[in-house]
Amino acid sequence: MSERTKIQAPTGKLGVLIPGLGSVASTFVAGVALARRGRALPIGSLTQLQRLRLGKRTAPREVLIKDLVPLAGLDDLVFGGWDPVETDAYEAARHSDVLPPHLLEEAQDDLRATTAWPAAFCHDVVRRITPQRVKRGTHREVVEALREDIRAFRSATGATRLVMAQLLSTEAHQPHGPAHEDLDALEAALDRSDPAVTPSLLYAYAAVQEGVPVLNGTPNASVDARSLQALAARRRVPVAGKDLKTGQTMMKTVLAPALQARMLGLRGWYSTNILGNRDGEVLDEPANFRSKEVTKRSVLEGILRDDLYPELYGDYCHKVRIDYYPPRGDQKEGWDNIDIVGWLGQPMQIKVNFLCRDSILAAPVVLDLVLFLDLAARAGLGGIQEWLSFYFKSPIARPGLRPLHDLFAQHLKLTNTLRTLAGEEVLHHTGLDYYSDDADDDPARRKDAA
Amino acid sequence: MSERTKIQAPTGKLGVLIPGLGSVASTFVAGVALARRGRALPIGSLTQLQRLRLGKRTAPREVLIKDLVPLAGLDDLVFGGWDPVETDAYEAARHSDVLPPHLLEEAQDDLRATTAWPAAFCHDVVRRITPQRVKRGTHREVVEALREDIRAFRSATGATRLVMAQLLSTEAHQPHGPAHEDLDALEAALDRSDPAVTPSLLYAYAAVQEGVPVLNGTPNASVDARSLQALAARRRVPVAGKDLKTGQTMMKTVLAPALQARMLGLRGWYSTNILGNRDGEVLDEPANFRSKEVTKRSVLEGILRDDLYPELYGDYCHKVRIDYYPPRGDQKEGWDNIDIVGWLGQPMQIKVNFLCRDSILAAPVVLDLVLFLDLAARAGLGGIQEWLSFYFKSPIARPGLRPLHDLFAQHLKLTNTLRTLAGEEVLHHTGLDYYSDDADDDPARRKDAA
Amino acid sequence: MSERTKIQAPTGKLGVLIPGLGSVASTFVAGVALARRGRALPIGSLTQLQRLRLGKRTAPREVLIKDLVPLAGLDDLVFGGWDPVETDAYEAARHSDVLPPHLLEEAQDDLRATTAWPAAFCHDVVRRITPQRVKRGTHREVVEALREDIRAFRSATGATRLVMAQLLSTEAHQPHGPAHEDLDALEAALDRSDPAVTPSLLYAYAAVQEGVPVLNGTPNASVDARSLQALAARRRVPVAGKDLKTGQTMMKTVLAPALQARMLGLRGWYSTNILGNRDGEVLDEPANFRSKEVTKRSVLEGILRDDLYPELYGDYCHKVRIDYYPPRGDQKEGWDNIDIVGWLGQPMQIKVNFLCRDSILAAPVVLDLVLFLDLAARAGLGGIQEWLSFYFKSPIARPGLRPLHDLFAQHLKLTNTLRTLAGEEVLHHTGLDYYSDDADDDPARRKDAA
Amino acid sequence: MSERTKIQAPTGKLGVLIPGLGSVASTFVAGVALARRGRALPIGSLTQLQRLRLGKRTAPREVLIKDLVPLAGLDDLVFGGWDPVETDAYEAARHSDVLPPHLLEEAQDDLRATTAWPAAFCHDVVRRITPQRVKRGTHREVVEALREDIRAFRSATGATRLVMAQLLSTEAHQPHGPAHEDLDALEAALDRSDPAVTPSLLYAYAAVQEGVPVLNGTPNASVDARSLQALAARRRVPVAGKDLKTGQTMMKTVLAPALQARMLGLRGWYSTNILGNRDGEVLDEPANFRSKEVTKRSVLEGILRDDLYPELYGDYCHKVRIDYYPPRGDQKEGWDNIDIVGWLGQPMQIKVNFLCRDSILAAPVVLDLVLFLDLAARAGLGGIQEWLSFYFKSPIARPGLRPLHDLFAQHLKLTNTLRTLAGEEVLHHTGLDYYSDDADDDPARRKDAA
Repeated sequence: MSERTKIQAPTGKLGVLIPGLGSVASTFVAGVALARRGRALPIGSLTQLQRLRLGKRTAPREVLIKDLVPLAGLDDLVFGGWDPVETDAYEAARHSDVLPPHLLEEAQDDLRATTAWPAAFCHDVVRRITPQRVKRGTHREVVEALREDIRAFRSATGATRLVMAQLLSTEAHQPHGPAHEDLDALEAALDRSDPAVTPSLLYAYAAVQEGVPVLNGTPNASVDARSLQALAARRRVPVAGKDLKTGQTMMKTVLAPALQARMLGLRGWYSTNILGNRDGEVLDEPANFRSKEVTKRSVLEGILRDDLYPELYGDYCHKVRIDYYPPRGDQKEGWDNIDIVGWLGQPMQIKVNFLCRDSILAAPVVLDLVLFLDLAARAGLGGIQEWLSFYFKSPIARPGLRPLHDLFAQHLKLTNTLRTLAGEEVLHHTGLDYYSDDADDDPARRKDAA
Repeated sequence: MSERTKIQAPTGKLGVLIPGLGSVASTFVAGVALARRGRALPIGSLTQLQRLRLGKRTAPREVLIKDLVPLAGLDDLVFGGWDPVETDAYEAARHSDVLPPHLLEEAQDDLRATTAWPAAFCHDVVRRITPQRVKRGTHREVVEALREDIRAFRSATGATRLVMAQLLSTEAHQPHGPAHEDLDALEAALDRSDPAVTPSLLYAYAAVQEGVPVLNGTPNASVDARSLQALAARRRVPVAGKDLKTGQTMMKTVLAPALQARMLGLRGWYSTNILGNRDGEVLDEPANFRSKEVTKRSVLEGILRDDLYPELYGDYCHKVRIDYYPPRGDQKEGWDNIDIVGWLGQPMQIKVNFLCRDSILAAPVVLDLVLFLDLAARAGLGGIQEWLSFYFKSPIARPGLRPLHDLFAQHLKLTNTLRTLAGEEVLHHTGLDYYSDDADDDPARRKDAA
Repeated sequence: MSERTKIQAPTGKLGVLIPGLGSVASTFVAGVALARRGRALPIGSLTQLQRLRLGKRTAPREVLIKDLVPLAGLDDLVFGGWDPVETDAYEAARHSDVLPPHLLEEAQDDLRATTAWPAAFCHDVVRRITPQRVKRGTHREVVEALREDIRAFRSATGATRLVMAQLLSTEAHQPHGPAHEDLDALEAALDRSDPAVTPSLLYAYAAVQEGVPVLNGTPNASVDARSLQALAARRRVPVAGKDLKTGQTMMKTVLAPALQARMLGLRGWYSTNILGNRDGEVLDEPANFRSKEVTKRSVLEGILRDDLYPELYGDYCHKVRIDYYPPRGDQKEGWDNIDIVGWLGQPMQIKVNFLCRDSILAAPVVLDLVLFLDLAARAGLGGIQEWLSFYFKSPIARPGLRPLHDLFAQHLKLTNTLRTLAGEEVLHHTGLDYYSDDADDDPARRKDAA
Repeated sequence: MSERTKIQAPTGKLGVLIPGLGSVASTFVAGVALARRGRALPIGSLTQLQRLRLGKRTAPREVLIKDLVPLAGLDDLVFGGWDPVETDAYEAARHSDVLPPHLLEEAQDDLRATTAWPAAFCHDVVRRITPQRVKRGTHREVVEALREDIRAFRSATGATRLVMAQLLSTEAHQPHGPAHEDLDALEAALDRSDPAVTPSLLYAYAAVQEGVPVLNGTPNASVDARSLQALAARRRVPVAGKDLKTGQTMMKTVLAPALQARMLGLRGWYSTNILGNRDGEVLDEPANFRSKEVTKRSVLEGILRDDLYPELYGDYCHKVRIDYYPPRGDQKEGWDNIDIVGWLGQPMQIKVNFLCRDSILAAPVVLDLVLFLDLAARAGLGGIQEWLSFYFKSPIARPGLRPLHDLFAQHLKLTNTLRTLAGEEVLHHTGLDYYSDDADDDPARRKDAA
């Protein structure tokens, strides 16, 4: 059995700072409010619901994650945010039309209490939004204003810890430049208000400078920048990203590992999405769609490994479409056509039609990431939190490591990391010993959880 | 690093004995014939194509399974079988219409060489087939005739080892009785030709008595009977089963673990299948469909664990349909509608339409199981081979262990067992050390493959 | 121009008598109540919304049906019914969970006012329902009690005309016997309380004897019985049936005519349905499903004409499934797989997934049929109303005529009949004259509406 | 009964001239070759297979179209064409990979005999093709060269009549200019080699000047130009177009009329297509896709009539996508999501997945159009043939008439026109007389075919 990591207890309030107070954010806040009053279940949240097996299969203990490691409770959460349009989370929830009216009204007080400060915003990178409430000034002035907001929030709420959950609209795609690669270059770019540094990166920079852990739920450049990772590592602030893995891409990271596990080949994967919320409207702009496309496309290459299996995965066509389709609102729908190849090269097809709900899938992911980042901070884990890859379309990893995209490998990484932090044996499913001649059911004689 | 298991080298021919020389069997034989001449790829076969990572992520070795453990080569395989209708694998292949004409003709010689002996058959359990070539007599006489066939095949081919791959038609469902639970009761049932002992069990009994490993690719009662497992354990003969995991059920063991990993609830799962081959015709009989339904239904309960998650999985409706639909022939199609529940109880739907090919998916699975059972025998592993659960709809496990249905857990179990047999570290994905202060890329300093 | 038919004006109240006050009936009543107050649109109703083109294409008049022929208005409708379980339409609406809560509450008064009298019921033909409120006695006694209810309703409401809309649960299938074929045999069967005469036929008999037009919205034996048609003809009471054409079958009567119009062949049509309302529960009983299956299956044969096109439609496999699947409630879903054949015998597939709502599709059809049957009565049309085939899965026609299943032919028949009743030219789309040398746009010189 | 039109007998050969000798053309030629030798059925062709009902329903005569009107026989067809890449139809067929090898080889001689002359081509309008064989010179020189080819073909084959079937690649979209609107402007544009006149129009102009009827199977500007129509009318040459109605759009013209017939509202229609043939590659260029999008989008507006039904069709979102997806080759697949609205505004969805084959659907349409245009010429019908709208995505009509998009209205127009040409009564489905008191089955007393 490994040694239990020393982790500080989660005493006091945990403040959640949310750049981008839109449909995901308001659904998240409403759900926490309803769940803590027992009015709705926080379905989709591992921190609230999932159990991990400890011990041998013949005498398993199935322990709730929140009993295995010390997490902040829902009652401890307080919320604030920034938005260029919405004034508070109630307005955001009303506009996004995600929750049924009776739930919306029940959560009204908590949503109203989640006010939005004027946002860092750049019209060049989000053209489809007409901002009404923005911070003006140089990059340094905006960063300082954000830090001021953070400090004021901490003081007003009395929070002992903070976490930033970035839920901004998708920014127009631009390749990483020096400011993203190198911390000195980033500082210089901030000094000269270089437009290559977009609002997403300003928020992350401000948070890390304030010692606040950051998760980036969008495809924007932020904690995936090596420059910011260097700052986070230096300041021992945990960061995680990027782009929440919700609908179609989640399915991709489920199905592609299955194809590879079974050694079935791939000739094509066509994915199209229709959605009608603000997210969809922003992505209707080609430059912004490009950002999303990049994170959505990377998963297949990351999983299938054409370098190892050129005959199976060396030549497939992968197309990803997102179409703004207002009739659907937040009720995103994906349609995937997957052309696979089996024994003797014979073709087969898998078609997946996912009638999902963007914010409903994203909200519990935000909750878990907030609680796990707070855990990481208290456990002394700084910099990149690769064990949280489970939640992201485009997970970040240190240089030299391939990002892990396979949902099941990610889940094992997450849960075995939790087991390790708790001083329990990891799970690896090997179990020939159950079938050896001296196999018996005495759990006292077993140690590992294989 | 664990110790490498002593495994005998695979010298000489490996004979494959196939009860049920139909579309799966003939596609398997044809594919081996074509693959060994380099005319087609054995896609879908882990033994032929898959690589396992050994060592740290910063310095991985990606080794072919067939280079990691000593497996029989395709050139060493020889085939024979039993069938109540077909006379050889070429006739079977022609009737089943799976392979394109040019591949069929190329494999003709090998298919013709795979002759079918008269079968053990019982019309009461497979009503839709009119047998032309069957063994008559008491159960004991039939068993003896099968054993005689096995010995004659061994002698005629000079095979040093044999494996039996059961690919019979689905028999009518009947609950397990004493003959399935207890070895003495089985012997007594054989003595009195008890109809509760169906042909499938006669084949398995004959094989194990001859020391021949058995895989059961069908839902029939055979190696899943505790009585037969006791015999196999006593004689140290490896056995594996049951019911090959190919199309829709494979997808279920991919998607259900994903729902559970993400803590998404389930309200209903509706599965329907259309297929038009002999398998479909046999399953058009309700009693025979019942056998298949039992194995197809068990996977959700095995994965989702309503005992641990009553609020998520305590009340869902699971329906499974198979409809005989001649226009499709072997080109099976599944349609699944999955009603899931997320954050705050909001409903979503996943629909999966799988245009698959039954025999194309099954053939590589048969190949892998034959080669892995032969490996198990040479490695001294007798009785239940739970590490081969990956390949089965209804995997068998020793009493006291829950069968493992999750495809990814099964895959990790399979591959970590191979790593263990080869004396390599197991994979468990924990990797906080990559991010510790003294993390570096020097593989010499790393031992485990986490 | 043909002569305008003399039609009595629709003065006074029109009473609607509904055997089977379930989800369709309550959705119909609620919708009428909401529509007449302008709170919701009666979408799906031709009598309320559709326009017909009159005159030449160069000078078209697009006239509302309700302006072309004299129909009762929504304000004139009053409702009553019979049910073995529900006590009024509000209870029925609450149990069926079709309408959103705010619409349900707005229509509450009208729904409450639609009370249900004890029903004619026979447990042998609807096993899944446990009735609480039924009429007891011989067939003759039950018929008399029903006629008494009708007279009392007429008197209480002061209705000048009545129409009966049969919306009962599907009864167990039984072939037509003498009582269905011959009026004397029917009378004799009533005298001896023959169980071959089911409640559905008792209701229809009572109505026709009272001079009340009848539509049969279910697959039950009722107005499709030749014996009842004879009675209706003799008494000059219009009748229409049977089985409302709503979801999947409606699509079949759309797609099959398209295949035939384009001369595309058919090898198979596989249809499956999932639904979770009371209708679905009743159909979970094989004998009751059989009734529905018969009406659902007949449409393909009726449209495709294998007698005329043996090479295209002489050998296809048609399967129809309905599965009770509670998670869906009234939200019926159909999945169709259609295997078609084109040029040189090449195969193609069409798959249709219809996420429909049973009662939402049925309610406007009930409204139209009620208003059109009342029109027919006032126009002196008695007996079978074949021009209403548009609304039925299994339309009735006089002996010697093939029932018309093609939705578009049915629509033309409906609308050209209305044109004829109104004394307008029929539409037949021939229009070479628009292209003749002396073609001009002077509508005065044109007479037909081709 | 109307008077039979005088139609010249189809004596001698009928030459088919095909600009664009690609997959559709070669599949068409191969199919005719196979069908005339009885080796395959010309499925999808009305001229070869369809029967029309004549007479009353009580005594119907079901007559083959080809027995009703005098059509050229398959044996009389001879073929020639132009292409910038292919040299003959066999090469085209091999590259397009539509037909199974054994059919391709059987048709080899006829395909080889269909040679391709150098093409009129303009790289600015079809960028994705690298032409190898093109005519050079001014517009007038190219037109003259085309006319020379036509005359040479007529002379070489001895054909008594010719028809041109335009099957060119889709040209880049450009709005109609003066040259498309006015014949004098067209002549002037030809004189100055105006690039607004694209190859498609040059082919049509050359044909009409030679007195050859033209069908335009593509979205290119050609016979839809008013200028060309004026020329065709003046010279009494029949023309038809444009853009063959094959897969997804055909379905749209089936489903949209059904929605309208049933008065169901529409909130959105999302259509996406994947295809991998040369057509798909050309459409991967946005300007060329635009041409196709215009014809594909117009059908909904043409059918649903938002002017008549603003509350049902006044505000829907219609998106059309085509994605080049090489794994599919000619096996085009469409996925449609249709958001409809019913009773009281409740939403429903229809999803259609069409696994079709572009050339297989198009080939019989080309055959029918060729034979019907030849019929029209012999019947003295010049100019626009609106009765052939059935076959086109974007049917042409004379000024002042709305194009007819509804597949069933189109079919009735086609068949009633044929009935009229043959001097038979038209079909209009009105049939109250079958139910009048003096209805009987005596066909002698009936005249119309209602």
